[in-house]
Amino acid sequence: MMSIKTIEKGGVTAPQGFVAGVAKSGIKKEGRYDLALLLSKVTASAAAVFTTNKFLAAPVVLSKQHLQSGVCKGVVANSGCANACTGEKGYQDAVTMAKSAAEVAGCEAEEIVTASTGVIGVHLPMEKIIGGIKEAGANLTAANGHLAAQAIMTTDTFPKETAVQFELDGKMITIGAMAKGSGMIHPNMATMLAFITTDVAIAPAVLQKALNWANKESFAMISVDGDTSTNDSLFVLANGLAENPRIEDDNSTAYRAFRDALTEICLDLAKMIAKDGEGATKLLEVRVINAASREDAAKGAKSIVASSLVKTAVFGEDANWGRIVCALGYSGAEFIPELVDVYLGDVKVAENGCGLDFDEGAAAEVLKKDAVAIKVDLQQGECEATAWGCDLTYDYVKINGDYRT
Amino acid sequence: MMSIKTIEKGGVTAPQGFVAGVAKSGIKKEGRYDLALLLSKVTASAAAVFTTNKFLAAPVVLSKQHLQSGVCKGVVANSGCANACTGEKGYQDAVTMAKSAAEVAGCEAEEIVTASTGVIGVHLPMEKIIGGIKEAGANLTAANGHLAAQAIMTTDTFPKETAVQFELDGKMITIGAMAKGSGMIHPNMATMLAFITTDVAIAPAVLQKALNWANKESFAMISVDGDTSTNDSLFVLANGLAENPRIEDDNSTAYRAFRDALTEICLDLAKMIAKDGEGATKLLEVRVINAASREDAAKGAKSIVASSLVKTAVFGEDANWGRIVCALGYSGAEFIPELVDVYLGDVKVAENGCGLDFDEGAAAEVLKKDAVAIKVDLQQGECEATAWGCDLTYDYVKINGDYRT
Repeated sequence: MMSIKTIEKGGVTAPQGFVAGVAKSGIKKEGRYDLALLLSKVTASAAAVFTTNKFLAAPVVLSKQHLQSGVCKGVVANSGCANACTGEKGYQDAVTMAKSAAEVAGCEAEEIVTASTGVIGVHLPMEKIIGGIKEAGANLTAANGHLAAQAIMTTDTFPKETAVQFELDGKMITIGAMAKGSGMIHPNMATMLAFITTDVAIAPAVLQKALNWANKESFAMISVDGDTSTNDSLFVLANGLAENPRIEDDNSTAYRAFRDALTEICLDLAKMIAKDGEGATKLLEVRVINAASREDAAKGAKSIVASSLVKTAVFGEDANWGRIVCALGYSGAEFIPELVDVYLGDVKVAENGCGLDFDEGAAAEVLKKDAVAIKVDLQQGECEATAWGCDLTYDYVKINGDYRT
Repeated sequence: MMSIKTIEKGGVTAPQGFVAGVAKSGIKKEGRYDLALLLSKVTASAAAVFTTNKFLAAPVVLSKQHLQSGVCKGVVANSGCANACTGEKGYQDAVTMAKSAAEVAGCEAEEIVTASTGVIGVHLPMEKIIGGIKEAGANLTAANGHLAAQAIMTTDTFPKETAVQFELDGKMITIGAMAKGSGMIHPNMATMLAFITTDVAIAPAVLQKALNWANKESFAMISVDGDTSTNDSLFVLANGLAENPRIEDDNSTAYRAFRDALTEICLDLAKMIAKDGEGATKLLEVRVINAASREDAAKGAKSIVASSLVKTAVFGEDANWGRIVCALGYSGAEFIPELVDVYLGDVKVAENGCGLDFDEGAAAEVLKKDAVAIKVDLQQGECEATAWGCDLTYDYVKINGDYRT
């Protein structure tokens, strides 16, 4: 097993050859950063995963087109307005965004991908956006990676950044990332924007394969509220500046090493997003083990982590495990009810599908923690899956009862 | 079209030959009614629909067995404890419940169906249950139908009862019903107990067919929180005392007349359950029209009505229609995003998939109502479906953060 080292305070500009610029362009009322540019000094291999929602936001439509080439030079992203359900004008606005960013970057518009997050159904204030892109273009530095992570936030309470390093064929490879989450978060894929950068040399098709793998293990396994957004986008740009022998073969050791590091980055971000779900006070981790297939384990874990009744019980620190088996029961996973064991932390609360006379005090201790672990043993096979989410709180209702104003 | 007349303050004992008895057996701490007996004077044709959850509560398992005969004499139901995830002992407790009720009714245990609702994973306090059944057996009257509707409540804020009459082949037919809902409410079927009685003469197989139809149009179209419970049960008992020519043919006019009246009863109850969702302040009605198929319309309507973000927006009286199209977009329904129109009440807020510059004041008026109507026009075909739900409020979180204590 290779050694993956986390970079303290590392973010999206940690890998060689990436810079970021930011602007307070005025899309958000409160004078916060709301626009970010992220550029690679050289053309990068690029891959992406997008929302499965039938309503695709304009930036998603445009980015899909631009990534058909498999290469990309940079990203322009804004918060405060999703540019979704905005028709032909919305699409043209996304094109203009890409063109403006390309002028700053000195490249073709087709080499820029765009991302937007915020309210649906409202047109982008294009004058502000164009002004913001020029402003961001004037402060492109590696140090501004942290401000870029702030600029893409909506109801997030903290910026989400991470970076790791590992050695590959004698070269040091760095992967950095930033993401935003908060509401409208649900598997396939999570609602969110995530941008991953790396200096590894890798072919686009292989990069896409690694990203699909990492996504399945991470963002596809989180839920805040069961709503899949119109704007979900996960991008990775790999610029090759680490000068490793270019990864072309997805059966190679180098591919697997990179894929595992990428998965770790995605898992880091996914857990941060789950923990920072709108109004959340606790991270919820649900692990389903000994399932007949990974798919059954994943169905069960996702269903439990997304259940409003499980989420409110965790908020209330109530060891109401019946809601866990209930959510497992309607998940669509195959299992035998009479074999199911349930644990809160290390406290076994149900065995073979029946409640145990467990230690309520010990269970209460588990539920008091900032991260609550639920484990379900199906006793059926050897597969497992873990899903992450958060509790459902008064603040979720407050935040979403009046989001637009 | 035949005329269906609603019976003022009618309930489960409105049809001829049905009586109810109740008890405060002490399962619930607060000295409320928690046990109900519902008996037919003569053996009735019977049909039922049960939860699709893989964890079947003991009373569901037992009732399925007892209904294989297609006939039934009565029901015994309790609130406060679901008798779910209770293993072999739980099953034997359900058997004992049926036996005790059969002694009171003077029939075989196999002629009794059982239903329980409340906390999962806890054993029934059998001494109290048996005492309660005896107590209820001593006050069997038609007048006690209303108290029976109270005895099956958990977090419901009002009892749910309804009854209708219509003429069939020169005879007056009556259908009565009671139900409980509140939390763990989600399509297929809604979490709930519902008991329907009628004096119509009808064969069991045809009765089952009519019930499946009515269920699909009503209980299968409501959602409170997306959680399908382990105990959902919908029963209908038809004792034939109206002396109409027995309905044996599901192609007959009589069958359709009965089916339509039964559907009306189920719709009434389903809407009451949706309106009384845990913590709810508003009934939410989502109608999807002009879909290519009824299935597409139903998928879209259910997805919108179950979206936490739509529900919180309705609670906050925020005309955030983007969440409506978002939920439609991940519903799995087939449609063309560029054709979709959205209405809040009569206010058109989006057209051809794009936001309109609508009258916010008029939209706010719609959202202030106790019943909020959302309409989505897919402009694809001629099919439609309606789903019902409620808003997501602080009180939902409060009620479910600490349900057991």
